[in-house]
Amino acid sequence: MKATIICIGDELLIGQTINTNSSWIGQQLTANGITIASVLTIGDTESAILTALDDALQQTEIVLITGGLGPTSDDLTLPCLVKYFGSKRVFDATVWENIRQIFHMRGREINEASKQLAYVPDNARVIYNSQGTAPGTIFMKEGRMVASMPGVPYEMKAMMERDVLPFIRTHFKLPYIINRHILTAGVGETQLAAALVEFEQSLPAHFKLAYLPNVGKVKLRISGSGDEEASIKRESDVLLETALKAVEQHVYGLDDDSLEASVGRMLTEKSWKLALAESCTGGYIGHLITAVPGASAYFNGGIICYSNEVKKNVLNVSEDTLKNFGAVSEETVSEMLQGALKTLDADVAIAVSGIAGPDGGTAEKPVGTVYIGVGSKDHQYIKRWNFTKHRERNIQLSGVVALVMLRKFIQKHLQA
Amino acid sequence: MKATIICIGDELLIGQTINTNSSWIGQQLTANGITIASVLTIGDTESAILTALDDALQQTEIVLITGGLGPTSDDLTLPCLVKYFGSKRVFDATVWENIRQIFHMRGREINEASKQLAYVPDNARVIYNSQGTAPGTIFMKEGRMVASMPGVPYEMKAMMERDVLPFIRTHFKLPYIINRHILTAGVGETQLAAALVEFEQSLPAHFKLAYLPNVGKVKLRISGSGDEEASIKRESDVLLETALKAVEQHVYGLDDDSLEASVGRMLTEKSWKLALAESCTGGYIGHLITAVPGASAYFNGGIICYSNEVKKNVLNVSEDTLKNFGAVSEETVSEMLQGALKTLDADVAIAVSGIAGPDGGTAEKPVGTVYIGVGSKDHQYIKRWNFTKHRERNIQLSGVVALVMLRKFIQKHLQA
Repeated sequence: MKATIICIGDELLIGQTINTNSSWIGQQLTANGITIASVLTIGDTESAILTALDDALQQTEIVLITGGLGPTSDDLTLPCLVKYFGSKRVFDATVWENIRQIFHMRGREINEASKQLAYVPDNARVIYNSQGTAPGTIFMKEGRMVASMPGVPYEMKAMMERDVLPFIRTHFKLPYIINRHILTAGVGETQLAAALVEFEQSLPAHFKLAYLPNVGKVKLRISGSGDEEASIKRESDVLLETALKAVEQHVYGLDDDSLEASVGRMLTEKSWKLALAESCTGGYIGHLITAVPGASAYFNGGIICYSNEVKKNVLNVSEDTLKNFGAVSEETVSEMLQGALKTLDADVAIAVSGIAGPDGGTAEKPVGTVYIGVGSKDHQYIKRWNFTKHRERNIQLSGVVALVMLRKFIQKHLQA
Repeated sequence: MKATIICIGDELLIGQTINTNSSWIGQQLTANGITIASVLTIGDTESAILTALDDALQQTEIVLITGGLGPTSDDLTLPCLVKYFGSKRVFDATVWENIRQIFHMRGREINEASKQLAYVPDNARVIYNSQGTAPGTIFMKEGRMVASMPGVPYEMKAMMERDVLPFIRTHFKLPYIINRHILTAGVGETQLAAALVEFEQSLPAHFKLAYLPNVGKVKLRISGSGDEEASIKRESDVLLETALKAVEQHVYGLDDDSLEASVGRMLTEKSWKLALAESCTGGYIGHLITAVPGASAYFNGGIICYSNEVKKNVLNVSEDTLKNFGAVSEETVSEMLQGALKTLDADVAIAVSGIAGPDGGTAEKPVGTVYIGVGSKDHQYIKRWNFTKHRERNIQLSGVVALVMLRKFIQKHLQA
């Protein structure tokens, strides 16, 4: 089974927006055993859209289109589909009610252009948009399908997951595909590969191992395909266990888990409350922790101490420590950590101080120098890291490394 | 002048790698007045590559190919080009020396496959690779060009900048292109469109207006092209001014500016120090503020108050207020705001408390209810917002809206 992905939008062609939709859709289709023949990005012009649609339908059974569904005059996808499939546009009460509610919630008047979104093609299946105003559509033609979705990533994703992928699975015979992920952090790709040499050599031909690195983390994907679901599942379970054993100490979770959520579960298990003292990360670690629903069960809060005064007044870092060792030092981080535990009445804390850049580096402490501490009232562990020259990356790496260090700290005390 | 970008690689189709090459190339071509007709991503198969090449050369004068140039058997781009253009492969001493040096530097033996990289097509211009082993090539055919570059982003970028773009500028007559951006926040696309009806109607044919929405913000792009740089620049300046006037109150910056940076400049102008009290945003606003280099000049810090205890103990929110009105209320946010100003010794503060979801909503305060306050010791402004059902989006929207509210607050006091 083959698919074409067509992405519509001038902003993609001129490079203003990076096309993350096509890679996300590519992942989903691959995970369902569908081969992506091509991804075609074109602008908002009728002739390009109609030609692309016709070519794609000739070459592949599945055509997924994103973008160009909004209410403005440069949104041409729906008019093109209507033309191509000879549709009439008819009023859809559900779409209309959704548009009304969204405008109402935002406290805005519905304009004429947005009203038109409620008129959908009469010969398509409508995909309701739970996240925005523009509906999607699925057309069928001679056993082939064309699904059209908005270009806004979260609107498209919701439609794919709730409607388009289930539709594809119902209408086409697909091989059974399994994808399992082992999530690791704080270890490089090459070190993982070295630990997995034997595993890779013993992999059967219908299974594959892939390394997917991403800022301080590496995801290992074991994927297999076959006709029989039960046997592929059994095989993948065994392979997963074997691979897990080889890289155990670096693993924080499986599949859709997150490092933040795994830390949350460990804190919950220990009934520990977490506090943060963030200098160079500026709230980023708090943002990671609170991205997990229900984080309030184990997260008390944090102090973003971007000035020495806040470090002194709120976290009780001593004037002398700051003067003698500097704000970016093991000594300051130690006092920040103890200050966070006390001020925020927590059992365990993370403290971070560093030079994110681009300025502020010295010969002794260049940009990328970050001290990260984790610990409790009685035990703390602080380490100096040398990250990169890039501000954003230094902040992200500090966040991931801090969570990995916290995991290790809790683990040690879970066993105790 | 039109171009096609062809990206070759299975890893792009299955979504393992996000295609950042095509957006970067798109930006470069756009900046040079070249229209990108399409971006086509295909896998490592000969038939797909040959078809794509032939189609692209029929439709556009410029064809840029990335990927598939490595030494392994799945790298088919060069063999395809050699076949298409009827080349012979001849030894190139410069490429060979470069390969030797790179292998030497890495302390590795040159393998047979890598040796083959030194055999280049006899009817193409060779692009030397300053960053890696595989050379690129430029073929010409009936006044049209095909450039082939590696898929590794930094290798491709070096070749584009040093060879391919200069080649294009020498061989083709290009129009002058200008792109200007007006950055708005806190206003919808449709409301902007309504304010710009007249402007759009008066736009000359060689100018275009586009709306680029993104979580609480909309970017307006005015783009124009023509033969004479000076006149296009003059025209675009006038158009920019006109559009700016129509949407003035929603604008936070132009072109590559950011909302966070614009807030930073305003704080600097006023010599005000900022403090945060973040409940449901959990550090996200701090993260936004500190993403800007040099934020320490105007940002003292923040309190992430994820528990009522932290609200009480660190921010001095009264027990009674929490009991009578709840943590998500105007009253609590008011006290959080004043607490942040005092505890963090700041001139102006943002305070946020809300129900990010997915749980915790009530009939009266459903998920998405967020109180956002901005203000100083003497003046504060608090508003209840009703965002979405989605945690991540509620956090992001709260961040953008809080910054917009802060801008307005400072603006009022800048004028005073």
